[in-house]
Amino acid sequence: MELGVGGSSPPSCTKKKMEKEKKIKPSKELPLGFIDRQEKELLTRDFIISKIKEVMIKYGFQYLETPSFEYTDSIGKFLPDKERPDQAVFSFKDEKNWLSLRYDLTAPLARYVAKNYLEIPKPFKRYQLGTVWRNEKPGPGRFREFLQFDADYVGTKNLQADAELCILISEILEKCGLTKKDYTVKISSRNFTEELFEEIKISSREQKLTIYRALDKLDRLGWEGVKKLLGKGREDKSGDFTTGAQLSEKQIELIENKIKDTAKRPSDILEMTKIFEAYNFKNYEFDPSVIRGLEYYTGPIFEVNLNFDVKNSKGKKIQFGSIGGGGRYDNLVSNFGNLDCPATGISIGIDRLVYALMQKKEFNIKSNKPVVICVFKKEDLLAYVEILQKLRDANISSEIYPGEGNLKKQMQYANKIGSPAVILFGENEIKTGKPTVRDLRTGKESNIEIENLPNEIKKIL
Amino acid sequence: MELGVGGSSPPSCTKKKMEKEKKIKPSKELPLGFIDRQEKELLTRDFIISKIKEVMIKYGFQYLETPSFEYTDSIGKFLPDKERPDQAVFSFKDEKNWLSLRYDLTAPLARYVAKNYLEIPKPFKRYQLGTVWRNEKPGPGRFREFLQFDADYVGTKNLQADAELCILISEILEKCGLTKKDYTVKISSRNFTEELFEEIKISSREQKLTIYRALDKLDRLGWEGVKKLLGKGREDKSGDFTTGAQLSEKQIELIENKIKDTAKRPSDILEMTKIFEAYNFKNYEFDPSVIRGLEYYTGPIFEVNLNFDVKNSKGKKIQFGSIGGGGRYDNLVSNFGNLDCPATGISIGIDRLVYALMQKKEFNIKSNKPVVICVFKKEDLLAYVEILQKLRDANISSEIYPGEGNLKKQMQYANKIGSPAVILFGENEIKTGKPTVRDLRTGKESNIEIENLPNEIKKIL
Repeated sequence: MELGVGGSSPPSCTKKKMEKEKKIKPSKELPLGFIDRQEKELLTRDFIISKIKEVMIKYGFQYLETPSFEYTDSIGKFLPDKERPDQAVFSFKDEKNWLSLRYDLTAPLARYVAKNYLEIPKPFKRYQLGTVWRNEKPGPGRFREFLQFDADYVGTKNLQADAELCILISEILEKCGLTKKDYTVKISSRNFTEELFEEIKISSREQKLTIYRALDKLDRLGWEGVKKLLGKGREDKSGDFTTGAQLSEKQIELIENKIKDTAKRPSDILEMTKIFEAYNFKNYEFDPSVIRGLEYYTGPIFEVNLNFDVKNSKGKKIQFGSIGGGGRYDNLVSNFGNLDCPATGISIGIDRLVYALMQKKEFNIKSNKPVVICVFKKEDLLAYVEILQKLRDANISSEIYPGEGNLKKQMQYANKIGSPAVILFGENEIKTGKPTVRDLRTGKESNIEIENLPNEIKKIL
Repeated sequence: MELGVGGSSPPSCTKKKMEKEKKIKPSKELPLGFIDRQEKELLTRDFIISKIKEVMIKYGFQYLETPSFEYTDSIGKFLPDKERPDQAVFSFKDEKNWLSLRYDLTAPLARYVAKNYLEIPKPFKRYQLGTVWRNEKPGPGRFREFLQFDADYVGTKNLQADAELCILISEILEKCGLTKKDYTVKISSRNFTEELFEEIKISSREQKLTIYRALDKLDRLGWEGVKKLLGKGREDKSGDFTTGAQLSEKQIELIENKIKDTAKRPSDILEMTKIFEAYNFKNYEFDPSVIRGLEYYTGPIFEVNLNFDVKNSKGKKIQFGSIGGGGRYDNLVSNFGNLDCPATGISIGIDRLVYALMQKKEFNIKSNKPVVICVFKKEDLLAYVEILQKLRDANISSEIYPGEGNLKKQMQYANKIGSPAVILFGENEIKTGKPTVRDLRTGKESNIEIENLPNEIKKIL
């Protein structure tokens, strides 16, 4: 049998083998780096996404969706981490070609723009929400799939675009309930580092990238660690040694001084500052230590940081890092042909934002749990349905107990699902036409006419 | 370099090779079976999803999301098409294990239930929205990824669950704007075919499955084609021969007669009919020709069909088939262990529903295109921002022209994006404080005070 999957074959499921394996139970576990997500997280995510969409419409962005898979060749040139170009993505060979699951939304956008270059408006403003995958070594809090939001301006060098990206990210965060104190947009520019490289006489693309990657670790390692990575190299806790950029002490000193000095701003940052002033936007900071690990940036770069404490599942405060960022990438699209297509974009890691937002006390998404109508006798279904339809017509989450257990089991079920109330419509209640409503939070019971049920139940929801 | 991807290595992107390949442009095309989706389709999809969520809350279902990947082993036993067990899924090998992208949402649910068996309420009602992938040979209108909605009751044999699934699907479709004439829920039962198999003395699991697959093609091939598949076999247009179920003419005749006779209903269908009566639900049909190709069904099965014409991209009427379906699968979860977990569920193919809904005249999702404020002089940014913020504060989609072109280019841009109006705030207008609003549909121009802009513009949106 020909296989449509990458290289060698997955565990075969041919008939005979299946019959034989019948008694071997499959694993109930998930692969590392993947998780099941529960209602509260999903509702928070939905809320954030609805706010993102509101802002995107307001700012005049077009909604686009590219597929999960691209030809490996199409997105392969822009892999996020040059250290392990192939490992970082899930790739797969079909009958003829190598396909890869997207690892970000920027490379597919570049492909889309190249493909539709003649048809799209210029500038082209689009946003996308989508899962991306990284085949990374999974660790605590490190996932192999995550949901991302991207907004990009393609086909313009106008720095108003870069400025608006910082402004719209702020509006999204504030619509989600954060205050100006809760977050900061940090900006810097590749022009700043390029000047720096000239000063210390670095011109090799490879060496620059090593320096970028070293500096990008500043928040995690501090200057002590970064200086090692700029010099000979650094041994981490596990004993792994990372070769450094081999800069001299003098060069390293110069870098440190320059990056610590926020007074001298490159010209593109000065221009963005003016635009921010016109918009009366103040919640940003020029911070030369913002580096971004990607090679393709060519101008202003941004990073969005949260300023409140975020804790891990054990209640321990964690270094949360940024929830998003981006920058200008004027040469990415031209990889697909001789297309002059300057661009700038920003991303939010939605799952990370959800995680942080769920820890804010002020932020509490309510999930609707159904009112349970208990079943005394199957023959009385019609009576139960009458109540059910009254409640549902009033948009009250409700159900007739869907199982087969006795009344005790039904009560256990209602408590288990966090139901606000049960409705008891037994023989006596049916006679009087007044079902009993039991508030499951207070335990209080009352008999209410069917007509009045929706209103009375809304009071205890 | 160790690869984290399936089997042999994808096109390498090592530095040297990249440098060398610099001039070879990557493909701008998408792999077959994958597409880019545009705003109108995405907004229609969002609308449908919002209706689904409303109904799910109302009916008391829990929101859950399982990841895209599962261990191949965990979902591999329930592959949708036994003819090509491995080909139908995208599988990858990471450092140790085979992972597969989910091909439906039912197998991951079974895994979830097995994993969390002690914690979940019983019955457990959950819904999920998610992309599924099939590594099928792509053809016209046949995609390799699609969005699916599933609602399931796990842990109950109560046929009220099966009945409610049919009812809630109808409510979703009607909330999306369809009338009762636009769709039919067809129901049948595996008990019906099991009786039939007993009558014609078929007991082999393999032969039953071949018969199911043959009958499932009734809407596409008609009785003539299906009878061949039940007998010796059938040659299709391309000359490919499918071996048949090898039934005798008498057996085939018996099957045909029984399936054409809708008068005799199996007991579970009779019970569902009673429940439908209690709910006053009438928009269903007992149809023994509803078969469903999956092996794992054990009781009632459902299929949702649209009754209006759907056309392909060339305007030709197509045989659209069902937009969803499902059924009872009492033994699926027990594959993971000795868990007694009867279940029933239903799915909608969201992309297909979107495709059909977009063709209904009554259905028209409006997308918001931004009002464009033209840029005469960069120095007047502050004046433009004043207008912009007025409009955006009134939630009007708007932007300052984000490019670098002259006024002619700006007008072309506004027309290209389908903007409803441009605002001209040149030297003279700034003096009088009355920007010119040009309605791009009528060409009409008027000068309006900044304060009144939001109200006046809302009139022409």
